[in-house]
Amino acid sequence: MPRPRASRSAYAVFETLTTRWNDNDVYGHMNNVVYYEYVDTTVNLWLRNSADMPVPATPIVGLVVETTCTYHASLGWPTPIEAGLCVKRIGKSSITYGVGLFESGNDACAGEALFTHVYVDAETRRPVEIPENLRLAAQKILKEN
Amino acid sequence: MPRPRASRSAYAVFETLTTRWNDNDVYGHMNNVVYYEYVDTTVNLWLRNSADMPVPATPIVGLVVETTCTYHASLGWPTPIEAGLCVKRIGKSSITYGVGLFESGNDACAGEALFTHVYVDAETRRPVEIPENLRLAAQKILKEN
Amino acid sequence: MPRPRASRSAYAVFETLTTRWNDNDVYGHMNNVVYYEYVDTTVNLWLRNSADMPVPATPIVGLVVETTCTYHASLGWPTPIEAGLCVKRIGKSSITYGVGLFESGNDACAGEALFTHVYVDAETRRPVEIPENLRLAAQKILKEN
Amino acid sequence: MPRPRASRSAYAVFETLTTRWNDNDVYGHMNNVVYYEYVDTTVNLWLRNSADMPVPATPIVGLVVETTCTYHASLGWPTPIEAGLCVKRIGKSSITYGVGLFESGNDACAGEALFTHVYVDAETRRPVEIPENLRLAAQKILKEN
Repeated sequence: MPRPRASRSAYAVFETLTTRWNDNDVYGHMNNVVYYEYVDTTVNLWLRNSADMPVPATPIVGLVVETTCTYHASLGWPTPIEAGLCVKRIGKSSITYGVGLFESGNDACAGEALFTHVYVDAETRRPVEIPENLRLAAQKILKEN
Repeated sequence: MPRPRASRSAYAVFETLTTRWNDNDVYGHMNNVVYYEYVDTTVNLWLRNSADMPVPATPIVGLVVETTCTYHASLGWPTPIEAGLCVKRIGKSSITYGVGLFESGNDACAGEALFTHVYVDAETRRPVEIPENLRLAAQKILKEN
Repeated sequence: MPRPRASRSAYAVFETLTTRWNDNDVYGHMNNVVYYEYVDTTVNLWLRNSADMPVPATPIVGLVVETTCTYHASLGWPTPIEAGLCVKRIGKSSITYGVGLFESGNDACAGEALFTHVYVDAETRRPVEIPENLRLAAQKILKEN
Repeated sequence: MPRPRASRSAYAVFETLTTRWNDNDVYGHMNNVVYYEYVDTTVNLWLRNSADMPVPATPIVGLVVETTCTYHASLGWPTPIEAGLCVKRIGKSSITYGVGLFESGNDACAGEALFTHVYVDAETRRPVEIPENLRLAAQKILKEN
């Protein structure tokens, strides 16, 4: 029972990221762990560049509380990755991001990830309300289903 | 709403794994991606050592089709990790493993992961029935709920 | 006694490579180990794209016998890297590559690496003469200083 | 011309470190970059545990200015590493460490690294004299030849 794959239209914005020789493991394809390096990087780039959150130097930081990835197809060096980003859910203190990893030039999503941040005070580590700048930016890339 | 954490009793077997300086990211704790390096390593060590599957040199290989991790607490260099392993579900061609990451000497599970392999023929990449040696080994560490 | 830094003119060809969130360690800059991921990737990209050596699927493979890096300045996420490549020495079976890592838009070399491959038969692991296609490509980017 | 390999007697203290599935690259052995993860970790463990330098939370930090590794033999998952450490040279502000990586149970050094730290004020990033506690600890593991 192959699962349905997200298409590019499920994502709002894209980053192109280069792969590395040692992304590939002994089976010759990108190791499953490495997919999450692209996911983490994509979310943090968007926070800095589009949400006025210049991580890591911010008074409010995102704690990762849950991640998941469904692997549909191989990726791997030397082909670059196009990483699509959207927001799936905006809570009081948390945001769940969707990140889809596509091989450059290929429309079939190879890895479909969810990534949930709880935003906390960098000092006290207690959850805070999502700052207005972040909430507004998140709403712009919200794709709920 | 803090989620309930698995205890050590939720896992059947344990591996002690050392941490590395660069497991920790700029926030001073283990990066969320690195948790999965321990998960991947724990499953593969068990396949080699306890399931008569000397990966990667096997005619049947495990393709990772889904992983997920819930992050309950920080881990990080220099404290070693104790990784607990169990099997959550045995299908026809697939096994879902549970891996719990504990800071050495700490009973609270810091990271609770699921990791699903579909076993495929190394040549054709088509799913095969789980080999008998693997099925028997998996049944020994099955903890379904 | 600050050491002299190589300039961009010391290198023959360049690749732009993106950085990742977890390239940075707890001190907020690229971890010293990660510089070598860019070095390794740069040499292997050139082998595939410019030297008619489609690694890793080649009958002759490069064994890394020595690497070194002098660190002049910080690099780090989110700024991309421009990696300069040249050949420093061509032996009978070995090539020493020079790789200089530059922060995008910055002319000061941040990391200056040497990387020596011995070319061996993929089966026997014994050194072989450098294949003609590789020797010719290496001569084109030779910068002995 | 095979190079002479350091023996275990060239090192003063040892750490056992576990390997990870994705330490191995497509050629089935530990990627050359990963050797340096063990080197970096070994030096930092010693600073914390034996030199009264609880990195990273120290007013004086070690900036890495040069590293080098000679690769004599393969290492790789699943075999643990025994990392030997010594000090090769103590300067006014800098220390050059020697780190030898041995496959567990194998007396032949597989990777022979040098790693040079300049100690700087964590705020100003200017070199400082090596603190007394560190100098005394370094002298205890000095092996100059």
